[in-house]
Amino acid sequence: MSRPLGSHCYFSCLIWLFFTSLMLADEGMWLFNDLPREILKQEYNFEPTQEWADHIMLSSVRFSSGGSASFVSSNGLVLTNHHVAADTLHKLSTPEFNYYENGFLANGMEHEIKAPDLELNQLVSIEDVTERINAAVASDLDPEASHQARRAAMAVIEQESLDKTGLRSDVITLFGGAKYHLYRYKKYTDVRLVWAPESTAAFFGGDMDNFEFPRYNMDVTIFRVYEDGKPAKIEHFLKWSEHGAGDGEVVFVSGNPARTDRGLTTEALKTLRDHSLPFYLDYLCRMEVAIQQFAYQSPEHQRRGQDELFGIQNSRKAITGMLVGLQDPQFIAEKATQEDALLVKVNANLDLKHFAEAWKKVSEVQPEKIELLNGGVDFRERYYEIAKELVLKAAEDQKPSEDRLREFSDSGRESLEHELFSPATIYDDLEVAKLSTMLSMFVEQRGGDDPLVIKALNGKNPFERAAKLIGGSQLNKVDVRRELVEGGVAAIEASTDPMIQFFRSLEAEYRKIRKRKEALEEIERQAYSQIEDARVAVEGTSGYPDATFTLRLSFGVVKGYEEDGREVPPWTTFAGAFAHQAAHEAKEPWKLPPSWNESESRIDLETPLNFVSTADIIGGNSGSPVVNRAGEFVGIIFDGNIQSLTADYLYDDEVSRAVSVHSSGIREALKSIYNAKELAEQLGK
Amino acid sequence: MSRPLGSHCYFSCLIWLFFTSLMLADEGMWLFNDLPREILKQEYNFEPTQEWADHIMLSSVRFSSGGSASFVSSNGLVLTNHHVAADTLHKLSTPEFNYYENGFLANGMEHEIKAPDLELNQLVSIEDVTERINAAVASDLDPEASHQARRAAMAVIEQESLDKTGLRSDVITLFGGAKYHLYRYKKYTDVRLVWAPESTAAFFGGDMDNFEFPRYNMDVTIFRVYEDGKPAKIEHFLKWSEHGAGDGEVVFVSGNPARTDRGLTTEALKTLRDHSLPFYLDYLCRMEVAIQQFAYQSPEHQRRGQDELFGIQNSRKAITGMLVGLQDPQFIAEKATQEDALLVKVNANLDLKHFAEAWKKVSEVQPEKIELLNGGVDFRERYYEIAKELVLKAAEDQKPSEDRLREFSDSGRESLEHELFSPATIYDDLEVAKLSTMLSMFVEQRGGDDPLVIKALNGKNPFERAAKLIGGSQLNKVDVRRELVEGGVAAIEASTDPMIQFFRSLEAEYRKIRKRKEALEEIERQAYSQIEDARVAVEGTSGYPDATFTLRLSFGVVKGYEEDGREVPPWTTFAGAFAHQAAHEAKEPWKLPPSWNESESRIDLETPLNFVSTADIIGGNSGSPVVNRAGEFVGIIFDGNIQSLTADYLYDDEVSRAVSVHSSGIREALKSIYNAKELAEQLGK
Repeated sequence: MSRPLGSHCYFSCLIWLFFTSLMLADEGMWLFNDLPREILKQEYNFEPTQEWADHIMLSSVRFSSGGSASFVSSNGLVLTNHHVAADTLHKLSTPEFNYYENGFLANGMEHEIKAPDLELNQLVSIEDVTERINAAVASDLDPEASHQARRAAMAVIEQESLDKTGLRSDVITLFGGAKYHLYRYKKYTDVRLVWAPESTAAFFGGDMDNFEFPRYNMDVTIFRVYEDGKPAKIEHFLKWSEHGAGDGEVVFVSGNPARTDRGLTTEALKTLRDHSLPFYLDYLCRMEVAIQQFAYQSPEHQRRGQDELFGIQNSRKAITGMLVGLQDPQFIAEKATQEDALLVKVNANLDLKHFAEAWKKVSEVQPEKIELLNGGVDFRERYYEIAKELVLKAAEDQKPSEDRLREFSDSGRESLEHELFSPATIYDDLEVAKLSTMLSMFVEQRGGDDPLVIKALNGKNPFERAAKLIGGSQLNKVDVRRELVEGGVAAIEASTDPMIQFFRSLEAEYRKIRKRKEALEEIERQAYSQIEDARVAVEGTSGYPDATFTLRLSFGVVKGYEEDGREVPPWTTFAGAFAHQAAHEAKEPWKLPPSWNESESRIDLETPLNFVSTADIIGGNSGSPVVNRAGEFVGIIFDGNIQSLTADYLYDDEVSRAVSVHSSGIREALKSIYNAKELAEQLGK
Repeated sequence: MSRPLGSHCYFSCLIWLFFTSLMLADEGMWLFNDLPREILKQEYNFEPTQEWADHIMLSSVRFSSGGSASFVSSNGLVLTNHHVAADTLHKLSTPEFNYYENGFLANGMEHEIKAPDLELNQLVSIEDVTERINAAVASDLDPEASHQARRAAMAVIEQESLDKTGLRSDVITLFGGAKYHLYRYKKYTDVRLVWAPESTAAFFGGDMDNFEFPRYNMDVTIFRVYEDGKPAKIEHFLKWSEHGAGDGEVVFVSGNPARTDRGLTTEALKTLRDHSLPFYLDYLCRMEVAIQQFAYQSPEHQRRGQDELFGIQNSRKAITGMLVGLQDPQFIAEKATQEDALLVKVNANLDLKHFAEAWKKVSEVQPEKIELLNGGVDFRERYYEIAKELVLKAAEDQKPSEDRLREFSDSGRESLEHELFSPATIYDDLEVAKLSTMLSMFVEQRGGDDPLVIKALNGKNPFERAAKLIGGSQLNKVDVRRELVEGGVAAIEASTDPMIQFFRSLEAEYRKIRKRKEALEEIERQAYSQIEDARVAVEGTSGYPDATFTLRLSFGVVKGYEEDGREVPPWTTFAGAFAHQAAHEAKEPWKLPPSWNESESRIDLETPLNFVSTADIIGGNSGSPVVNRAGEFVGIIFDGNIQSLTADYLYDDEVSRAVSVHSSGIREALKSIYNAKELAEQLGK
């Protein structure tokens, strides 16, 4: 399952962004203001009108919790994946009712349930601001100053735009720093749950079937956006296709791929292969074991830990696949051949020769990047994250908006506070299990004699320390957080909350590491911008930039593939789901929910359930609508097959496939399994 | 569960051996030829006769697969833990019958089942050979030469002893190299399974209850040793105590603790804390996740992987506990205080001052030891291990016995071949899962550009490479192994078996690393021998040496303890087991087997089932008999509580406890649950 970004994006994301050469037919995550019109015309004889493109863009939705979605009705219905909704389903759940496991259907609009902290974004315009940004960064600045100048320029543009339009305004870095675009979003923060299936239907086959195909998953959840307490009136939404897409038909995916690294130099890829991914995989396996242990204790522990555990297992499976792909000697060899060919041309041309320096610059920053993997103080634990935001926010708010750390600029305040003041329950026992494991790894990484470790442990072992910090903290209370935000620096300095004090004791180190990382990113950004210029000069064309969790259009065809000598057909059906259950003797995780088993005789079993296409997708695309030439909804992306896991670094259309839930399958399930005919009939209308 | 040594001792064991000062009342794993007679007299008014000691020693049994046991009848019955027997139960199992899960009771001797490769050792004599060893090692040799000379001297003594007595003869290094003892063992290689309970009774509560107390586990299995095809006649066996041990009563544990590190210097402990244990824990978590994934695929995969998985989970839980203990700043502080106190005395005495050098020497080898953690080629995968033994054996056999790598000396040949020619089934799919994960970690550790990595992968990714190596190998066939042993170097060189060729391509590196490790061990051995001399000089007494998987006697009292303000009583009963099941709604792993639930009404529910004592035990003690003053069997060690996990480094008698199955519980289970009255009546007779 292509896990959305957000709370589960543990990977400290230096966003490298870039363009890759030698493109394959269906490759590309294209900018909506620079669609591959020629390729589409050549390959598929399709010429999208501006109206078509605008309609798809405006019908697309981004989830702040990570993931993609679409508007599918005039009265505010939003369709996404169950696993994108999982964070909200988990937050809504209580020991009495588990929305994630049991699913939900609102019996009328008045029973739709408000999500505690979701923010949905609809992209409404794109503006190129490259010149303004570049003009603000003098060429003689050192990396830190240059990063600072760039950040300030972005903040000013964003604030201006916010003041002018009232819309969320984000400046996005593209092509590794060669371009900067201003994205404006309409925000929806009153988002209510309408329908979710049981996790056993959405995630049928569990971790075992994840990233596999054939699949049989109803990985879908429906929300509705409200404005002023009423269902929002939506102008641009997707019509529902009568039959979905046929074999070999071209389809389009509109969503927010989180991050690709296709533009990385070979040396940077080797850092991933030999350092970053192994480091991350060790971390994930340690956390998986720890949270698994936590969850085993009782069904209630299981409920509390399942969202976290799912996220970790999903990342672990994805990273394992990526790592094995990168460890394949042929993979790096192929990348190196491409790079060498480009460098030969660059070096042969007197006007371009100076660009070769850029590759060296990227190589030069690798050792320090590797060093910075270890011993960071950016613990992904909820209390700690809250304390971090509160402490940093108080300090940053004393500076002018453009001088602050990026996430604390005035234009981002509303979104930040929406999340910071989320009333979602925090489970102390789960948090202790997480923080103690993270602290233990922190001690390992720095060594028990490190002064900061000694300060952090305060004479206790990591388990005792985590229990004390969390047991004594009041940061689980929203009003305590509000008071600390309102009280500013004085309130933070006066606070006796142990978690606030804990982060304060690490704040200097946090800032030091972050500053160093941002300076390295700046060096890379400048280098990759040069590499992009060199590539455009040699190859005469730009293309698509590496993914940045912003809206892109991919395309491809519905198409099966060959695996171990077997033909894998492009579709599965409801009949296949029941057969798959039977083949595993209905043992977990291959046990469909009672609702399915009880409805078997009513279901049109030959209805398509899931299908694959060659569209170029990646994590973050989860929940993306799949549309046909007519712009009608034919499916929703929820996964890539195991062969697609190296798509972060290289697209392949031979066996890599995007996996979707079929539009007809969704309608059939609502009607024949979930007794939700009325809802089914609203879809696309 | 104190996991036995053996196939699951993944930790590359440099055996540090040593003595600790400031002993607590019940501390110590004492040599049978140097029992703590004064302490026993003082503390417990007990004066063991030589006859008593000899009887206990000769009634004790060591399992080659790791773990301890005892003779409990004149006709060869041997009692050990179910988890010590697990390796054998797993090897006996087939897709049709799972001995590990379902248990077994031989219906008459003719139905007892021969274990494929067990070797049981009974210690029959101990001889001090320190002077002979020291005389053979000239003081002016460098570490490698000195290690070589020591190894040669050991081999000569062992061979002499074997020639003279026909007994397995091992020279054991004690007190970090200050003493060398020759241990002679009678071997039993015809070992048959008599009775095993179901895994759900033996390991009730599973990984969750492991290392916890109260416990309710029937962690017991009974074998019988045969000689010349008939049940062996056993002179020394333990009588069965009528009622077991009472609260506060002194008890004795006779078994083979695998390894302690109580004599380590503070610097060496920090290497464990900051490097060795984290490295090992990362490895375990990665393997746990990989084998868990393997096992989830189907019940048959589960069966194939369960022994391996259990071993890994057990180690992971133990290492996690040890690591957290070591990360407690107070722990290292306490160790450092002890060390400083000794060093002050050493430095204050002109005759002892030169000993202080030894601490420096230990510190000096740490960086290289840390470096050697990474990138080793000692993969713990069955095909690879077989190839390694075959290739090394062929080469080593060309040298005189005393010049060979230690495990290939003539005196060890029989035991080595007993294991090498084991007919136990090897499951290729499980082995591929293991080797591919290990290869992936190997690539990570050395980096994908390392020449040896490039050679090892041979152009494939780790998963494809592992599948090719194992898929193409014939080493799962015992006759192929025999032919290769008989054919010697010529056969190895001519072999086209991919796994043989694979190890041959890594052999030079394996030997290089091993040589370096052994040289470092030699430096440490000499240093710790000096530290021991210094300690004896300052404190005027020797004590017990660090554990070496050889027979030791521990003692303690049956005694509850306090945990989180609650009193934990020393005993549990059968009634408690059923209550524990009910408290967890009989959900796995808290589901007792049908045999228990169906017998509930017949069982005397107040019979004691498990109990705790202050005896000083550690991994390898699993299966050790617990006896009373009269030398009668009162229980069998199967675990330590979670507070005892730091016992590798420091004994504590406040809350650390050894956990045993009670003698009366075993008899009651055999009679009332397993319908094995006849067997029950043989016990102790």
